[in-house]
Amino acid sequence: MRYHKIPDETVKRLPRYLRAAVLLRRGGKKKLSSSELAEFIGSNSTQIRKDFSYFGSFGTRGVGYDTQKLIKQISKILKLDGQREAILIGVGNLGSAILAYEGFSIYGLLIKAVFDNNLRKIGKKLNGLVIEDIAKLKSIRPKKIKMAILTVPSNQAQHVTDKLVDNNIRGILNFTSCRIEVPRKVKVVSIDIALDMARLPYYMQ
Amino acid sequence: MRYHKIPDETVKRLPRYLRAAVLLRRGGKKKLSSSELAEFIGSNSTQIRKDFSYFGSFGTRGVGYDTQKLIKQISKILKLDGQREAILIGVGNLGSAILAYEGFSIYGLLIKAVFDNNLRKIGKKLNGLVIEDIAKLKSIRPKKIKMAILTVPSNQAQHVTDKLVDNNIRGILNFTSCRIEVPRKVKVVSIDIALDMARLPYYMQ
Repeated sequence: MRYHKIPDETVKRLPRYLRAAVLLRRGGKKKLSSSELAEFIGSNSTQIRKDFSYFGSFGTRGVGYDTQKLIKQISKILKLDGQREAILIGVGNLGSAILAYEGFSIYGLLIKAVFDNNLRKIGKKLNGLVIEDIAKLKSIRPKKIKMAILTVPSNQAQHVTDKLVDNNIRGILNFTSCRIEVPRKVKVVSIDIALDMARLPYYMQ
Repeated sequence: MRYHKIPDETVKRLPRYLRAAVLLRRGGKKKLSSSELAEFIGSNSTQIRKDFSYFGSFGTRGVGYDTQKLIKQISKILKLDGQREAILIGVGNLGSAILAYEGFSIYGLLIKAVFDNNLRKIGKKLNGLVIEDIAKLKSIRPKKIKMAILTVPSNQAQHVTDKLVDNNIRGILNFTSCRIEVPRKVKVVSIDIALDMARLPYYMQ
């Protein structure tokens, strides 16, 4: 089931709520109010309650949310209960940093395989995964992995993207500074790591 | 001058508009309509016009925006015309990837110095910058640099943050998975590179 009427801005905020709930639960919190959540994120509780209202209410007035239930519910809405596994393409500095990053586990995301075209890298082990030859991308097909993290050099971005699409990848997290062209059935989320820095001066005193 | 009434969501979108305008101008576009901008970003033109309305109108109906003027105006609102220089702390995989990333120049941002505490790294050159000893952070004071990019291991995040604050850093782009505590006068923007991946399954078919 898809929730067609959820505004995109709300969808963008949901991972933040999920992250906060997971971290607060790890810290021992079993119940959570919208104002605690707001304080943790640096948002406001009216916004949070409004965002949650799109999915029906899953809190109790004056009591707050059951943290575990909240995590399950948001994961379900984001479809993170079904789609969890990804591959990573391009083991340069950024690719290596992403592989080592603990943050994916917060959302239940797993990097299951990693590929490169550099013969000196192929066969080596990194974070428990053997780096595979990009020419053998076909190996992911029986695993039914649908997501890929793209950290190749810009001049290879489109070529690799085409290969990913050919091998049934349907979602791409694009860290290259290129726009990549994909068929309509494939969704791309592009990340510009400089973007958040561009609003830092605005907030500074 | 600060524009106190601009909603935070609008401020968050401004860097995207700026980025699009810079890239389109590089591609030769001298005039730009809100729908062209919307198409480039994958947003909608009503939203863009509404966001721009907070700063007075700087487009002409039916003609659109002068791309160069638009870039200047957004840069000014974001205070990117004043605050441009940053240092980077922690030259691991992520730090190295950020140093090599071309994307900062789009916003006029410049990484002017880079620090680490690893004796094997100090003194080496990376992307035209000599890696300096974090113990000598004081050297940035006369340069009046106010922004720092934090890419140290999590267990060093708070300690390094305290040092940054002592040396007059007032804005921190935090790539560690920790929450860092800072005095009120310091602004932190935290980045979770996994966050955007958590909404990919939602969009996938």
